[in-house]
Amino acid sequence: MTKENVQGASEEEPQGQSKKGLKKQQKEAEKAAKKAEKQAKLADQQEADEDDFAKDRYGVCPMVQSQQKLDRALVRVQDLTPEKAEQQIWVRARIHTSRAKGKQCFLVLRHQQFTVQALIAVGDHASKQMVKFAANLTKESIIDVEAVVKKVDQKIESCSQQDVELHVERIFVISQSEPRLPLQLEDAVRPEGDGDEEGRATVNQDTRLDNRVIDLRTTTSQAIFRLQSGVCQLFRDTLINKGFVEIQTPKIISAASEGGANVFTVSYFKTSAYLAQSPQLYKQMCICADFDKVFCVGPVFRAEDSNTHRHLTEFVGLDIEMAFNYHYHEVVDYITDTMVQIFKGLHDRFQTEIQTVNKQYPSEPFKFLEPTLRLEYKEGLAMLKAAGVEMGDEDDLSTPNEKLLGRLVKEKYDTDFYVLDKYPLAVRPFYTMPDPNNPKYSNSYDMFMRGEEILSGAQRVHDAQLLTERAMHHGIDLEKIKAYIDSFRYGAPPHAGGGIGLERVTMLYLGLHNIRQTSMFPRDPKRLTP
Amino acid sequence: MTKENVQGASEEEPQGQSKKGLKKQQKEAEKAAKKAEKQAKLADQQEADEDDFAKDRYGVCPMVQSQQKLDRALVRVQDLTPEKAEQQIWVRARIHTSRAKGKQCFLVLRHQQFTVQALIAVGDHASKQMVKFAANLTKESIIDVEAVVKKVDQKIESCSQQDVELHVERIFVISQSEPRLPLQLEDAVRPEGDGDEEGRATVNQDTRLDNRVIDLRTTTSQAIFRLQSGVCQLFRDTLINKGFVEIQTPKIISAASEGGANVFTVSYFKTSAYLAQSPQLYKQMCICADFDKVFCVGPVFRAEDSNTHRHLTEFVGLDIEMAFNYHYHEVVDYITDTMVQIFKGLHDRFQTEIQTVNKQYPSEPFKFLEPTLRLEYKEGLAMLKAAGVEMGDEDDLSTPNEKLLGRLVKEKYDTDFYVLDKYPLAVRPFYTMPDPNNPKYSNSYDMFMRGEEILSGAQRVHDAQLLTERAMHHGIDLEKIKAYIDSFRYGAPPHAGGGIGLERVTMLYLGLHNIRQTSMFPRDPKRLTP
Repeated sequence: MTKENVQGASEEEPQGQSKKGLKKQQKEAEKAAKKAEKQAKLADQQEADEDDFAKDRYGVCPMVQSQQKLDRALVRVQDLTPEKAEQQIWVRARIHTSRAKGKQCFLVLRHQQFTVQALIAVGDHASKQMVKFAANLTKESIIDVEAVVKKVDQKIESCSQQDVELHVERIFVISQSEPRLPLQLEDAVRPEGDGDEEGRATVNQDTRLDNRVIDLRTTTSQAIFRLQSGVCQLFRDTLINKGFVEIQTPKIISAASEGGANVFTVSYFKTSAYLAQSPQLYKQMCICADFDKVFCVGPVFRAEDSNTHRHLTEFVGLDIEMAFNYHYHEVVDYITDTMVQIFKGLHDRFQTEIQTVNKQYPSEPFKFLEPTLRLEYKEGLAMLKAAGVEMGDEDDLSTPNEKLLGRLVKEKYDTDFYVLDKYPLAVRPFYTMPDPNNPKYSNSYDMFMRGEEILSGAQRVHDAQLLTERAMHHGIDLEKIKAYIDSFRYGAPPHAGGGIGLERVTMLYLGLHNIRQTSMFPRDPKRLTP
Repeated sequence: MTKENVQGASEEEPQGQSKKGLKKQQKEAEKAAKKAEKQAKLADQQEADEDDFAKDRYGVCPMVQSQQKLDRALVRVQDLTPEKAEQQIWVRARIHTSRAKGKQCFLVLRHQQFTVQALIAVGDHASKQMVKFAANLTKESIIDVEAVVKKVDQKIESCSQQDVELHVERIFVISQSEPRLPLQLEDAVRPEGDGDEEGRATVNQDTRLDNRVIDLRTTTSQAIFRLQSGVCQLFRDTLINKGFVEIQTPKIISAASEGGANVFTVSYFKTSAYLAQSPQLYKQMCICADFDKVFCVGPVFRAEDSNTHRHLTEFVGLDIEMAFNYHYHEVVDYITDTMVQIFKGLHDRFQTEIQTVNKQYPSEPFKFLEPTLRLEYKEGLAMLKAAGVEMGDEDDLSTPNEKLLGRLVKEKYDTDFYVLDKYPLAVRPFYTMPDPNNPKYSNSYDMFMRGEEILSGAQRVHDAQLLTERAMHHGIDLEKIKAYIDSFRYGAPPHAGGGIGLERVTMLYLGLHNIRQTSMFPRDPKRLTP
């Protein structure tokens, strides 16, 4: 490629990517290349007339194929501050926007969530041709620029780096973007109301997800997934500090771990197997194997045909299991403290990310109490009944009632995080320990953020005989969970634990309303790509 | 259950667990319970004759069902040191061994990899009946004891806590083990040679894996998996310090990520899908989405019918992908430094675990150089040819040649870790960047520990056109990887990365010889359980 090729490219209005096959695309690309070549030749002739003194100062680089080890430091956009004023530096960034104005071209350069203004003007360092070249570069192309950092008198409100701009002296393209983007980044970060009012576009969810690589470049997406990385880190660091061991549990299993429903089947050589619906049985087996306090972070799979705002067929489970001495509340305290450490860490370390997301999706700051509020299921039910809800003592909470209870709890206790303890035994899995004082209840709990469940947990039955009885009561084929039940025959400590949905924690902490926003490449009954 | 039940139990020689159904087991258990009840009644009568002054000091606790919040601190076995001498404490532990001798009973109590001797003797605190009760407890049962910590004159060589023993005053069973263990822990930690010579048993791998919960209790297993948890932690901490973001990639995918072979098929509602053979395409898409430096830790699936010492059908991938400026060696340096940080961290923080494993599986300490040795594939081939190996310049390394090269490198450079760079293009995946100087080679590399591959990586093709050409050259259906190829159309930074096999790192660092030892619940073509 030569530098002239790009000059033929001009920005067009965004439109849907052609759905025709790649071969056709290729042919078109070849045609376009030939056309560009012709144009380039013409342009060459024209420009040969006026001598371009800056011709070595711009152009399209050959594809970076590691031809050389260039000893050139690149400064990150986020590090462009007034302390660097008057320094000559190199920067690599994308072209976020571009605006030509007479003999000048203003670019906004972007790297991740950071932006800076850059100016190329005809003068000592740039020729007319060079400014034209810059003005014709396609948005989202990646470029290297050499520039002098200049302090500005008036803050540049539209950029993250408001106190400086770059005066560009050289500009080279590292990777060109096609001119037609499947979505515009500025549309993708526009708050939902704003678009309607002012007749400006927003981007619907399917377009975002179909073009996830572009959608993930927005400041909002960058912030969401950096914060999510932080949730994982805080979860693990807190537990490792508390003496937990990280385990890895198999995802391909020979029998459905939580009963037969909602499980994906896998062809396994000459037989079939299942995808684990949770690491439940395996983390408990690790407790029986004396690891005492274990956690794992990994995918869990649910073949549930639920098309809701908070269900995915594959999500990331943050799982905890722990032996305790005398009462499962020892474990509940460990888990709630872990959640509190996560909330504090997010608040302290991810304020920029939280504020970035809030610009597009406003929400109240997340509130929690110390110690964590723990209500009994009965108490929760009483609050709901007092608010006019009719439901039986042993019924499970429906999603609307869950949310209503969250609002009632928020009003009364001013917290977005609480534990609901002692669920009816009937609505919990077979391995749940019954309440010693009332056989209709159980030593089990859910935890909620902003009125939605993020964790389900319980003391587990650690006695093989009672476990067998409970499994039979639930109609589970004992032969299929033999290895699991046998684990409890050779001395098993009392233990409890829980499983947290990572995407839900991120969604609810940030006050978002759809779990697909907090899963990079979400999977639901209707979506398997990208 | 009453305390008398246990008295009927006696230790028997280990033998294979009956393979008959659970129902039969249950019937037998019921019979045994009736028999025990009868015996208990008899025992009751006998004991009624002699008054038992200690009868409240021992027994079987009711199943811990969180009946009460007991305000009792339990001291961990590993914390039983001479500083605690003369203190009255409570300990929870398993019965590791038990030896009755006249009016005394010596127990070795175990918690995880730590052991302490405990003595119960007829006297002020224990009756004849209480000593008999203790002597009859089954191995691996979990007990609470109240005891006084006593310094000992002679070190107790057989225990980890060598300077103290416990004088037991109360003993209660928390969870009873069945008397017949499917394997003996002392057999399971015996070095392989030792068993043969002295006519003592060792435990074969299938017995271990069939009874993994017991096998994981051994000091060796505890050490292996604590160290493996450390590998994950060191990997992530090092990368987070280097500015990486953790990502979560989908495991259920619509098209085989690395070509069609060796992929597991999943039924996905009314269609089918595949299990990801690596997070390759997704971590690259994150680079195109400006995350710049990403890592992920998660399961990868290979439907390969390989029954070798180092292949699993499901293993844990530690994956890295990173944008670089001008040369992929920037990324190679990041990865090798990450490996070096892991080696150093293991050496500094897991010395006890390393030595524990070495007792059963002796090996030389793991050696590495700083900076890491990097050889070109051609150089490796020249070394092999000089050693008499015949192979073509563009052939891949066979496993025996890989190992031989490892030995040659160790002899010449004294390192167990090195990089082999610039593999022939023909033996690498379609997304590998060709060498700019020689089209037969590529910008790709493997990394080796003790002569076995632990990482495979490369600079990736970041240009949609070249990627299309390379995919077609490999006969890959372009329509199936459209979303992936399209990711590179809107500006893509040059990038490189690699995938590390967690179980292999643990195995090779510790000098073990079978990957099933470093996977808690290994999956291979013949094993799906437990």
